Amino acid sequence: MLNRKVIMAIADGLGDRPHTLLGDKTPLEYARTPNLDHLASEGITGMMDLIAPGIPVGTDMGHLILFGYQPHHYPGRGPIEALGIGMEVKPGDIVFRCNFATVDENGIVVDRRAGRIRKKTEEIAQAINGIELEDGVVAYFKPATEHRAVLILRGAGLSDKISDSDPKAPNDGKPYHLVEPLDSSEEAERTAFLLNLYLKKAHEILSAHPVNVERVEAGNLPANFILTRGAGRMVDIEPVAEKLKINVSCIAGESTVLGAAELAGYKILTSNSMTGNIDTNIELKARLAIEEIANNDIVYVHMKAPDVKGHDNEPLEKAKSIELFDHMVGLIRQQLPENVYLALAADHSTPCEVGEHTGEPVPVVISGPSIRRDRVLQYNELDCAYGGLGHLTGGDFVRILHDFMGLVKKQGN
Amino acid sequence: MLNRKVIMAIADGLGDRPHTLLGDKTPLEYARTPNLDHLASEGITGMMDLIAPGIPVGTDMGHLILFGYQPHHYPGRGPIEALGIGMEVKPGDIVFRCNFATVDENGIVVDRRAGRIRKKTEEIAQAINGIELEDGVVAYFKPATEHRAVLILRGAGLSDKISDSDPKAPNDGKPYHLVEPLDSSEEAERTAFLLNLYLKKAHEILSAHPVNVERVEAGNLPANFILTRGAGRMVDIEPVAEKLKINVSCIAGESTVLGAAELAGYKILTSNSMTGNIDTNIELKARLAIEEIANNDIVYVHMKAPDVKGHDNEPLEKAKSIELFDHMVGLIRQQLPENVYLALAADHSTPCEVGEHTGEPVPVVISGPSIRRDRVLQYNELDCAYGGLGHLTGGDFVRILHDFMGLVKKQGN
Repeated sequence: MLNRKVIMAIADGLGDRPHTLLGDKTPLEYARTPNLDHLASEGITGMMDLIAPGIPVGTDMGHLILFGYQPHHYPGRGPIEALGIGMEVKPGDIVFRCNFATVDENGIVVDRRAGRIRKKTEEIAQAINGIELEDGVVAYFKPATEHRAVLILRGAGLSDKISDSDPKAPNDGKPYHLVEPLDSSEEAERTAFLLNLYLKKAHEILSAHPVNVERVEAGNLPANFILTRGAGRMVDIEPVAEKLKINVSCIAGESTVLGAAELAGYKILTSNSMTGNIDTNIELKARLAIEEIANNDIVYVHMKAPDVKGHDNEPLEKAKSIELFDHMVGLIRQQLPENVYLALAADHSTPCEVGEHTGEPVPVVISGPSIRRDRVLQYNELDCAYGGLGHLTGGDFVRILHDFMGLVKKQGN
Repeated sequence: MLNRKVIMAIADGLGDRPHTLLGDKTPLEYARTPNLDHLASEGITGMMDLIAPGIPVGTDMGHLILFGYQPHHYPGRGPIEALGIGMEVKPGDIVFRCNFATVDENGIVVDRRAGRIRKKTEEIAQAINGIELEDGVVAYFKPATEHRAVLILRGAGLSDKISDSDPKAPNDGKPYHLVEPLDSSEEAERTAFLLNLYLKKAHEILSAHPVNVERVEAGNLPANFILTRGAGRMVDIEPVAEKLKINVSCIAGESTVLGAAELAGYKILTSNSMTGNIDTNIELKARLAIEEIANNDIVYVHMKAPDVKGHDNEPLEKAKSIELFDHMVGLIRQQLPENVYLALAADHSTPCEVGEHTGEPVPVVISGPSIRRDRVLQYNELDCAYGGLGHLTGGDFVRILHDFMGLVKKQGN
């Protein structure tokens, strides 16, 4: 067996549409991308729909597919968010996305984001983490960025069919909601009861916490309540790394991508200098990619900026971020070992004029040893539609790479 | 959100094969089609299999898919025919396609089409419409074109697992068939009994009807019996318009297309001048398309003639009908608002040399705002195989259009 490996470079939200500001080119066509084009001309190209033509996907879903899962494995946003901030998540856990919030003595939500609290959230979170409720159910709580946090209820017989305590409406004088069961099961009733119990305890603890006392004294809103939303039950899903018996690294700055990688059983490498924007540390990413491929089978290296610029409708900035991606890929190319395929992909399109994810396909390339080189010379949404891979799904694309590595089981004999 | 809309122009049975009479070109290649080619050169093209490669579809199935349904939603021909002639059809209804026929005193079918009766069918149909049978089951009857008609049995506990009364064999001295249950269910037995009861009553009423007395006196065959075939049970299917919360108009002359549009909850616009043939009123269709798109999200505009000419194996006439389609599309193009995608499609291929529908794909185009324009310059079965959309299913094609309109839900977050 040939010892073949893969580095996949992912430009988040790369796909776009022709834009008048760019002379009716897409940002990817407009950008100067000698390295991406070189890979296209040396490799085989195609157009990829992550799930199927016309279906937009989120960053979490897109990456789960690129990491080797099927769409139906999707465990919900909560578990991925939890994994992304380094929480352990077990099958059966009920996971909530949370906000630190401020409520008054009548339970009215004064601020859904506790004055956009940024400091000492680690400290106050610690005070409400690891609380044992009833019947062995334990609540784990961890802050994410700014006012965001994740709550996990762990124990037997829990359900995610419960409502939100978050009233969502922005600070309009509504009270927080009591959590209700959403079906008639005993599990839902019990989970709603336990969560209400936890929220009450947390409120008591937080109200008296020195950090909040300090905040009130300084004229800031206290983070004295936890608003929960989007209950999700962690599925029992075999990590891709275990299933395929491979070692994989994922280099990224964004917690959603890191969470999906964690779910797949991949080693995650991150750094504060990987910012999720145009100032991200591409030299570090490229260096780590080369270092990691020495001892791993696959390395994913991710760049967030094109998606951000798409959401912001900044086509020129998007083109610039793509040139950075090109530069990063160039650095990887320079030191690429001979037995490593270098693949280019994206998790979805984020056309500037839409400012949101759309279901348009993204261009892909596979270059590397003994590839069936096609006639496409440039990496973009138009040229790659004429590529040798044709139109394929995200599942197809990843399976092709796995097959190049000898990881796909032969059907029949 | 961008306010994007779609006009889809459908040329029925458009797809064909190279024909010696046309210098080995297909009718679409042979026809002069500057407007269709302009759209191809400005847009993105591809080849569409309505269901999958090599599967021929009927006009009803093809249009249901273009209207946004999945193949498994197909409710049978009867319900679509009924809707197409303006009958109300409810879930659970058993719907039959019927002929007015002539039987003698021994029940022998003298003519399956009652001398191809064309006049006063409305009058005699009225006499056998709305008849209450037993247990609250009511029979609704309405004539379609010429000797054709539709019967609906409505009530609780009915089944479509019953045989035809139509002996099919053309006027060869066979008697009409007693309707039999096709399975051992109580419902099938009861439905067969009720239908036989209805046919007997109808025979009595029709035999004595003044229109038939007149016909006999004038030496014409009386329409004194109803032959039923193709029992279909109306499924409980959510109209696409409701599901997607969109307003859609369908402009067509053919009752099958109108019936499918009615099923989907679309507003239907028709006129006697939309003939279903080469003399159809394309100016009216084009004008209505532009008028309707002002207050709707999608407008379908249909032309039947290419299919008719394919069935008749008239390649030159088919090319001529395609030039009319081109003219209609040209009229639409001239007044197309900027935010409207103009899509070209067909429901199936009807190659002249076959004279029937085949499973060959049909060319499609999407042109409009910020489209990823491909390199195809002509709209036909060969060039569009090199298009940027690649090969796709009817479901993919419609989903892509819906996605351009922001109607497709994102998977994941």
